[in-house]
Amino acid sequence: NGGLLLSCKAWAMSVWEFGRDEPNRVIFSLKVGLAVLLVSLLILIRAPYETFGTNIIWSILTVAIMFEYTVGSTFNKGFNRALGSLLAGVLAIVAAQLALCADRVLEPIIIGISIFIVGTVTSFMKLWPSLVPYEYGFRVILFTYCLIIVSGYRMGNPIRTAMDRLYSIAIGGLVAVLVNVMVCPIWAGELLHRELVKGFDSVADSLEECVKKYVEDDGLDHPEFSKTVMDEFPDEPAYRRCRTTLNSSAKLDSLAQSAKWEPPHGRFKHFFYPWSEYVKVGAVLRYCAYEVMALHGVLHSEIQAPYNLRVMFRAEIEEATGQAAELVRRLGKDIGDMNRTLKASLLKRVHASTERLQVAIDMHSFLLTSSYDRATSAAKTDGDTDANPSPPSETYHEMTRKTSKRLYSWPSREVDAYEEEAAVGNLLVPRMRALESTAALSLATFTSLLIEFVARLGHLVDAVEELSSMAKFKSEVEL
Amino acid sequence: NGGLLLSCKAWAMSVWEFGRDEPNRVIFSLKVGLAVLLVSLLILIRAPYETFGTNIIWSILTVAIMFEYTVGSTFNKGFNRALGSLLAGVLAIVAAQLALCADRVLEPIIIGISIFIVGTVTSFMKLWPSLVPYEYGFRVILFTYCLIIVSGYRMGNPIRTAMDRLYSIAIGGLVAVLVNVMVCPIWAGELLHRELVKGFDSVADSLEECVKKYVEDDGLDHPEFSKTVMDEFPDEPAYRRCRTTLNSSAKLDSLAQSAKWEPPHGRFKHFFYPWSEYVKVGAVLRYCAYEVMALHGVLHSEIQAPYNLRVMFRAEIEEATGQAAELVRRLGKDIGDMNRTLKASLLKRVHASTERLQVAIDMHSFLLTSSYDRATSAAKTDGDTDANPSPPSETYHEMTRKTSKRLYSWPSREVDAYEEEAAVGNLLVPRMRALESTAALSLATFTSLLIEFVARLGHLVDAVEELSSMAKFKSEVEL
Repeated sequence: NGGLLLSCKAWAMSVWEFGRDEPNRVIFSLKVGLAVLLVSLLILIRAPYETFGTNIIWSILTVAIMFEYTVGSTFNKGFNRALGSLLAGVLAIVAAQLALCADRVLEPIIIGISIFIVGTVTSFMKLWPSLVPYEYGFRVILFTYCLIIVSGYRMGNPIRTAMDRLYSIAIGGLVAVLVNVMVCPIWAGELLHRELVKGFDSVADSLEECVKKYVEDDGLDHPEFSKTVMDEFPDEPAYRRCRTTLNSSAKLDSLAQSAKWEPPHGRFKHFFYPWSEYVKVGAVLRYCAYEVMALHGVLHSEIQAPYNLRVMFRAEIEEATGQAAELVRRLGKDIGDMNRTLKASLLKRVHASTERLQVAIDMHSFLLTSSYDRATSAAKTDGDTDANPSPPSETYHEMTRKTSKRLYSWPSREVDAYEEEAAVGNLLVPRMRALESTAALSLATFTSLLIEFVARLGHLVDAVEELSSMAKFKSEVEL
Repeated sequence: NGGLLLSCKAWAMSVWEFGRDEPNRVIFSLKVGLAVLLVSLLILIRAPYETFGTNIIWSILTVAIMFEYTVGSTFNKGFNRALGSLLAGVLAIVAAQLALCADRVLEPIIIGISIFIVGTVTSFMKLWPSLVPYEYGFRVILFTYCLIIVSGYRMGNPIRTAMDRLYSIAIGGLVAVLVNVMVCPIWAGELLHRELVKGFDSVADSLEECVKKYVEDDGLDHPEFSKTVMDEFPDEPAYRRCRTTLNSSAKLDSLAQSAKWEPPHGRFKHFFYPWSEYVKVGAVLRYCAYEVMALHGVLHSEIQAPYNLRVMFRAEIEEATGQAAELVRRLGKDIGDMNRTLKASLLKRVHASTERLQVAIDMHSFLLTSSYDRATSAAKTDGDTDANPSPPSETYHEMTRKTSKRLYSWPSREVDAYEEEAAVGNLLVPRMRALESTAALSLATFTSLLIEFVARLGHLVDAVEELSSMAKFKSEVEL
């Protein structure tokens, strides 16, 4: 019993937190309640009910179906509903007149055929790619047409039926729109704006997190890839958010689609605000995020550069990463604040630190291709001030571990491969060296991807600049 | 006038091709027409109309709203509709009885409050992440509840109203389900199966296309990245299909969700067919596709390895790619044919050719880090049989072009960077060398990514094996 009470409490807490995380959810729910209450009053109170009659129940249906989370999508759905109902009404009146001209026996046949045709044509049209966003409109045409023509046939006077129904649908739509806009409106544009800014932050965070793990990782606590491929990477929250950003294209699209329906509001003061630019910036950001995903792939790859090699370039890698992440965050912040600042000096610094990384790689490039012994001796020469001999032996241990892990992760096949290769020619020793060599090259891969990320930042800056100018962000001269 | 006729003809052609590409679209449209016709007959013909009364128009609404493309999603929506209506009915009856106990003045107030509460609670619940798939069910609860309780209040006897409405909804649902299942059913499971197989093919195609372009590319026709980043890459159809595969996770999810509702059918003969395994295989395939995206990124990167270097490893790269693509295609084909074959020997061959690529890279690794002159002299030594001196000069030309393009794509900033660096210390020459050196390392990046792709194939094979065993594919001993 105490357990039940406890789980009830936990459940109540999670509901409370769900609402507190995003108060809009609670506001939305209360607004729906209010809207259905308002239309119900039209029936519950005697006067309007006597004016409109039983058809008024259609307005309840309209509110329940039309009320959406954001203002834009409510407008969009309302437009679909209105145009669909209107088209269906016109169609139904035409078909009904046609059926009336025919004699009494033919009438139901004509009506039946017309229903079949409308059903087929609307269903086919809503599959057409450019008409998919209006799917709901076609559904509305279909059922409104059927309802009007069928009840017109049974109850007579289809025009009267159509008109009454259109009135009540219009009332329902009006209530839904008014409540949605007047009471704490939730704007799709605002959500889109925040979503994009969040995307910038998550890319920056995840870049830093990934690089931090890479340079700090001593190679001892690598989980098996097969276990992690489907996994949530619980110790990498930023990576998960970045992956969400990668999958957010559909969300951005639909928010931009809704935002186009919204009038100027809040911070977005002018007409024809460039919402589609947000989608474009999101796409360029996603292109940058692909590089982060590739970096993450190298981090969790089975072939790893030795720890001492990674440590050697640590300062340069961290500096370039820090600068790049700062630039990305700054871009996000500027969009968030609707400021327009010059990014030239920041970009210059990012490029300068990337150049330094390139120089460092170039200076020590012999390390990347040398065999194991040379790498060890280099480590010895570098670290000859400290007397303990553990770094080389650790490296050796690590090397063995990596190789054995590799053997483990490609089980029996590897052993067979030996035999095959032995038959072709004794390539056993070079092959092992090749593994070590490519292990060192994995560092080159990591830095190349990082450099490519920086190269793409230029395009991100351009895309943000384009958005800033089209959306007329406040221009500020950089200090 | 002829132009109008011509564009009409073109339009008709495109509609025809749209239907021919996927005949299911035409079938679906005709089925919708048939279903609405059937329910309309219930009203158009006298006998059933007299039995059921005007409430029968609810069955038309149900068909129009419930009829979905696949059998599974129709079942799913039907379940939502049925459960939603039932719950709403029960709720409405309870509330109506409660309101009847109160006196005449209090009754509409109680009804109004109950409508507000139902509207708020259902709207809040449908935002809860695990209840999002049942969004439609909550909408049904809301409007059915309102309709029943309001019309019960005005027309008396809410139980009678609720029952009549449930009958006609049940009839509509039954017609929708029967037509959907009996007439050329479109199974979500079948679509999911084909979609996954298509994903394998597109990854294989796009890998081959990308590598082919990389080794054949002479660096002369690179479009500017900024122009291509938002572009559709018209000359790379397979890449676009691969990108579609990357974005298909939502599609696979929803198809699997629908497929779970379907009874055994066609090739999928046993109960509890592991549809969720398809989603998992799709996720592993997407992980492989991320590597293809990274390869594509290197292909269109601004920093490119010189042509002669790429040509040097061409045979090995192409062999490894060919083997890997064949393995991926074979996996796709086996799923498609529902066969279960051993992939050990194929995987062994892929690994063997990847090893050869590693050996080749290791043998020539000095080329990757040497300065420009050494690379040229190596090219000369390699190509000393042909007398014309164009390859080195071409390389030189290309180098300059690349560098200038780089300068161009990072315009004024680069020039400033010179000054800054010159102030720090005269790093001008090393910096240029660094650029060349990292250009050669870009080849290392490309091969590393290719090797990582091969490494991930092992996990893909495992995932497919898991699916094969859970779905009880026909086992065949490999020849």
